[in-house]
Amino acid sequence: MRFIAVSSGGSSGIQHVLLEAFLIFLAAKLLGQLFVTLKQPEIVGELLAGIVLGPALLGWIHLGEFQTALADLGVVFLLFTVGLETRFSDLRAVGRASVLVALLGIALPFLLGAGTMHLLGYGGSESLLVGVAMVATSVGVTAAVLSSLGRLQTKSSRVILGAAVIDDILGLVLLAVVAGAVAGTISAGSVIATVVTALGFVAFLAVVGTRLVARYPQMVDKLLPDKSPLVVGLILCLGLSALAAKIGLAAIIGAFMAGMMLAEAGERYELDRRMKPINELLVPFFFVLTGARVDLNAFAQPKLLILLGILTVLATIGKVIAGVFGARSLGRRSALIVGVGMVPRGEVGVIVATLALASRSISVPIYSVIVGVSVLTTLIAPPLLTVLVRSEDDDT
Amino acid sequence: MRFIAVSSGGSSGIQHVLLEAFLIFLAAKLLGQLFVTLKQPEIVGELLAGIVLGPALLGWIHLGEFQTALADLGVVFLLFTVGLETRFSDLRAVGRASVLVALLGIALPFLLGAGTMHLLGYGGSESLLVGVAMVATSVGVTAAVLSSLGRLQTKSSRVILGAAVIDDILGLVLLAVVAGAVAGTISAGSVIATVVTALGFVAFLAVVGTRLVARYPQMVDKLLPDKSPLVVGLILCLGLSALAAKIGLAAIIGAFMAGMMLAEAGERYELDRRMKPINELLVPFFFVLTGARVDLNAFAQPKLLILLGILTVLATIGKVIAGVFGARSLGRRSALIVGVGMVPRGEVGVIVATLALASRSISVPIYSVIVGVSVLTTLIAPPLLTVLVRSEDDDT
Repeated sequence: MRFIAVSSGGSSGIQHVLLEAFLIFLAAKLLGQLFVTLKQPEIVGELLAGIVLGPALLGWIHLGEFQTALADLGVVFLLFTVGLETRFSDLRAVGRASVLVALLGIALPFLLGAGTMHLLGYGGSESLLVGVAMVATSVGVTAAVLSSLGRLQTKSSRVILGAAVIDDILGLVLLAVVAGAVAGTISAGSVIATVVTALGFVAFLAVVGTRLVARYPQMVDKLLPDKSPLVVGLILCLGLSALAAKIGLAAIIGAFMAGMMLAEAGERYELDRRMKPINELLVPFFFVLTGARVDLNAFAQPKLLILLGILTVLATIGKVIAGVFGARSLGRRSALIVGVGMVPRGEVGVIVATLALASRSISVPIYSVIVGVSVLTTLIAPPLLTVLVRSEDDDT
Repeated sequence: MRFIAVSSGGSSGIQHVLLEAFLIFLAAKLLGQLFVTLKQPEIVGELLAGIVLGPALLGWIHLGEFQTALADLGVVFLLFTVGLETRFSDLRAVGRASVLVALLGIALPFLLGAGTMHLLGYGGSESLLVGVAMVATSVGVTAAVLSSLGRLQTKSSRVILGAAVIDDILGLVLLAVVAGAVAGTISAGSVIATVVTALGFVAFLAVVGTRLVARYPQMVDKLLPDKSPLVVGLILCLGLSALAAKIGLAAIIGAFMAGMMLAEAGERYELDRRMKPINELLVPFFFVLTGARVDLNAFAQPKLLILLGILTVLATIGKVIAGVFGARSLGRRSALIVGVGMVPRGEVGVIVATLALASRSISVPIYSVIVGVSVLTTLIAPPLLTVLVRSEDDDT
């Protein structure tokens, strides 16, 4: 009677979707609440929920198409909301520090990662690609922590957000160069095209987009009628993040730019208040799925476990030093916050590793190590950030 | 340089998700707005957006896993919100009318559908299964129309909602009987088990669940702390809709029951206001995907086109008569609203057809006809409902 078991309104499709959505959401909220009670960052609880429920342990949730789609939408809307609370002028004021942090934060992890792999006897292509994967910054985790601590409006937060945008552009260029070199098809033309497209996208939105929105408030008012200001915001967010992904940037950069463009209009229409329920629903999917990517079985070999440890330490140190030096104008404590804020690799490191695996430029064990580094750096940052921010509050 | 084309933050996965989500959302809102401007129901615009963008015409959007998951979540949250605005006592007050409407609304379309197929010379199993597919009511479309007209609190709306719940239970029983008969595995035990499970689920939630929530407000207050009352609501909604699907009922019945259980607490915490942004984002996916299921190519054969026409007319007439007779105690106009409100088959008819196709009990052309009937009945109802409700307002 299999026919009846999945009968009328309950196709196995919808049943499967609702059951996994329920499990992911429930586990995220329960473990998140537990960590809040323990005065730890909620996000760490959500990441652990993913590790526990995911393929590594219980295997109750999967990295399937709809689960990752909900996670993708979650992080996109999260960065859109962060953008709504950020103005371009805020970023410009800390521009020099952001550029320095981004440049150092690319150079140090790349050199440390590729150099270590080379010293350990790995091949040239593999070493270079591990270096590239260690460069990525995923600003979603940091943004969520700073937002939950009510610290999005500080200088250090602005430096982090600005550096994340520049970091992503530079990381894209580095990937173009390394992937071209590995494939033996590197050409100045393609690298320049990548740079021009990425810079053009960000600059156009920053300069023209924001001015259009600022200069023609009546147009914005017309686009954001009282009935559903949220709808226009969602359309802009989805459109620009799809476009950013299309030209090779992180989708979250497009979402962040969309948010910034609407920052002023957003205030008038309380867009951030309206985004809150959407984020409450979807953002946990991002953190749980990030945790679910951990493959504990990969680290049964002591050699790989040691490599994971070394690369995680180097990935952390590289970004922290970049922050401490790059943002030293903000004072030591704030510069340290910037450095720690840049540590999480999150889904961006995983994406680079997945692409490299697909083109057979890295082996499966090295892929698992990179995913491990991405998740570990993502787990380390929130508690460190929380301690740093709280002790800063104690000082003042 | 395919490696770079999908480089760093932009895996083809996330790019694909964001692009289709953007297209679905944009088209739904544009065509929806156009129909509002033309004083037509927004939902018809969204359904047409699906037909235009879907495989039938442009082929820009697909009935893939993540798209249908977003649509599933959309209709589940829509019915949860409708439940929040409904109390069990409201339904009990119109109980007799609801039962009559549901019984007639099952019997008439089943007999008309199966009888017509039989008269046209189709086989016994195929005729019976077409009859079952014509029985289903998908209350999502009607609920959205009545809600947008501000009519959820009327008696006719309550009769429709109550009848939809009973309809789904009876439809499940009918499907169990017919599927068992077709497969030759019918047994009194399995049919009784289906009835008991479905009735038990609904009765338990209606009687025990609601009383628990009503009697222990302090428990509800603890479960719905000021910080995020929405989270508990979402967990209950996802959990009960997954459970409903698991036992063979429509997932939306579980979501509706979850909403009703929280109706009083929900008022205190403004749960419906908090659900609004989530619905604004996800509900359009449901209507666009419903429209995208139309396969125009299937109707190149005049014979099938005629069958589609006949069955659509019978499916409509069957439900309208059921409403007019079953709810005649409400007066003629309200009874007619009830009848028209029960007409849309929506995704429920499609699910029955999909199951029957999977078990090879119906042919592919007949499958396309059932899907066509489901979508056409869903397209017909909103304009009719709007006209009826507006002319009723003129009378008073």
